[in-house]
Amino acid sequence: MTKKPLILVTNDDGITAPGIRALIEVMKTIGDVVVVAPNSPQSGMGHAITLDSMLFVERVNSTKESHAEYSCSGTPADCVKIGIREVLDRRPNLCVSGINHGSNASINVIYSGTMSAALEAGIEGIPAIGFSLLNYKWDANFSAAKPYVKSIVENTLKNSLPEGVVLNVNIPNISENSLNGIKICRQAKGNWEETFDKRKNPQGKEYYWLSGKFVNLENKKEDTDEWALENNFISVVPTQFDLTAHKHIKELKSWNLNE
Amino acid sequence: MTKKPLILVTNDDGITAPGIRALIEVMKTIGDVVVVAPNSPQSGMGHAITLDSMLFVERVNSTKESHAEYSCSGTPADCVKIGIREVLDRRPNLCVSGINHGSNASINVIYSGTMSAALEAGIEGIPAIGFSLLNYKWDANFSAAKPYVKSIVENTLKNSLPEGVVLNVNIPNISENSLNGIKICRQAKGNWEETFDKRKNPQGKEYYWLSGKFVNLENKKEDTDEWALENNFISVVPTQFDLTAHKHIKELKSWNLNE
Repeated sequence: MTKKPLILVTNDDGITAPGIRALIEVMKTIGDVVVVAPNSPQSGMGHAITLDSMLFVERVNSTKESHAEYSCSGTPADCVKIGIREVLDRRPNLCVSGINHGSNASINVIYSGTMSAALEAGIEGIPAIGFSLLNYKWDANFSAAKPYVKSIVENTLKNSLPEGVVLNVNIPNISENSLNGIKICRQAKGNWEETFDKRKNPQGKEYYWLSGKFVNLENKKEDTDEWALENNFISVVPTQFDLTAHKHIKELKSWNLNE
Repeated sequence: MTKKPLILVTNDDGITAPGIRALIEVMKTIGDVVVVAPNSPQSGMGHAITLDSMLFVERVNSTKESHAEYSCSGTPADCVKIGIREVLDRRPNLCVSGINHGSNASINVIYSGTMSAALEAGIEGIPAIGFSLLNYKWDANFSAAKPYVKSIVENTLKNSLPEGVVLNVNIPNISENSLNGIKICRQAKGNWEETFDKRKNPQGKEYYWLSGKFVNLENKKEDTDEWALENNFISVVPTQFDLTAHKHIKELKSWNLNE
């Protein structure tokens, strides 16, 4: 009898989010599932880890269930670290994160708790995928995403990912029959034009709320994730944690910094 | 008369850290300095941004001083965003972050608040450098680092960085005459072997402290930052925020995910 793959499931919207519920449901059709997810929303946490505080981890579903769920007081990256080292009794075959409520395409990958969990697993040498749906609402509908999530996970288990690569999957917020399929892409150049909403508290002290508008700096580039999403494709970006700008090493050497 | 460059200074150890004091001192010999730095330590914050809370920003030095310093209640990335949009009256010519108390070489770049600030400035199209000294102690000695920091900043202003690239500079914790100079490198492959120290609180509830040991997976590779640092060089890694694993796009396309 073939042993089923062990799948570690996490996210950044917190263990009660509908997105992780959808992901758990699909993963249970593929393997043995253990969930270790934040006990509160962690959006925008990037690759934060908890160095200056303790971590609590608790089983939160019945031991009679077919899979175990643990909530953790830390960040998404913490959940993966403690999941691998303390919760799981063997090394997982896969780590999936999400389904995030909202886009992690383009530069959003760098602010994303969802993707930081996937990258953390990748750093540990575990195949990993982050999934995001382009709908930030709590009552987002994940049903169109599910068959694609299943297919991408099954293909990843079958083909195995290149070393040092995790997948960043973003899914348009449209019905299943409007989806044009899956497209392998690169991260579009983009940034956020922030606006800071300045207010005063009852004591007259000023404070700010961070807000802003995403700007795609590469409209109409067909090889980018943003183009794929705008054209009703699911975008899959192979994503790495080697941040070296290899092609610029030579140029920097020409600066002759030691002279 | 040539206008002096405007330099935004930040860090992740907080505005009172000796490392940022050393950096401010050097930057004042080069340009006009404005400091916007966290009001408390933010180590390990990765690229976190504050979405679910307000931000406070306050001038914390005398208006009679030759440079302005602001403390911010947010993360290093928040400091850069609010610094550029709300505090500065013109676009800075450079953003420097640090000098961090502790290494941000190898995979540490991804957990680093210091580097997230530099990367945030880079995303905004502003030349940026993160500096770190390999001594995590509060009373670390930054004097050997200072002339090199000055030289790297002056060269960056003179040569201008390639688009999409920021510098990750790490400095060995040794005396100035033991330093062998500056080496352009790539990020060494490495990870953390975490250990979780399990304890019980007075009510008997279990909790964990994250701890661990860094493992260099590429010992003796002379083009890596870890090799440079072990051999008494200052490492300079050109670092990018395009996380696409470009060389693996073709391989993933061969998976034929749409079949």
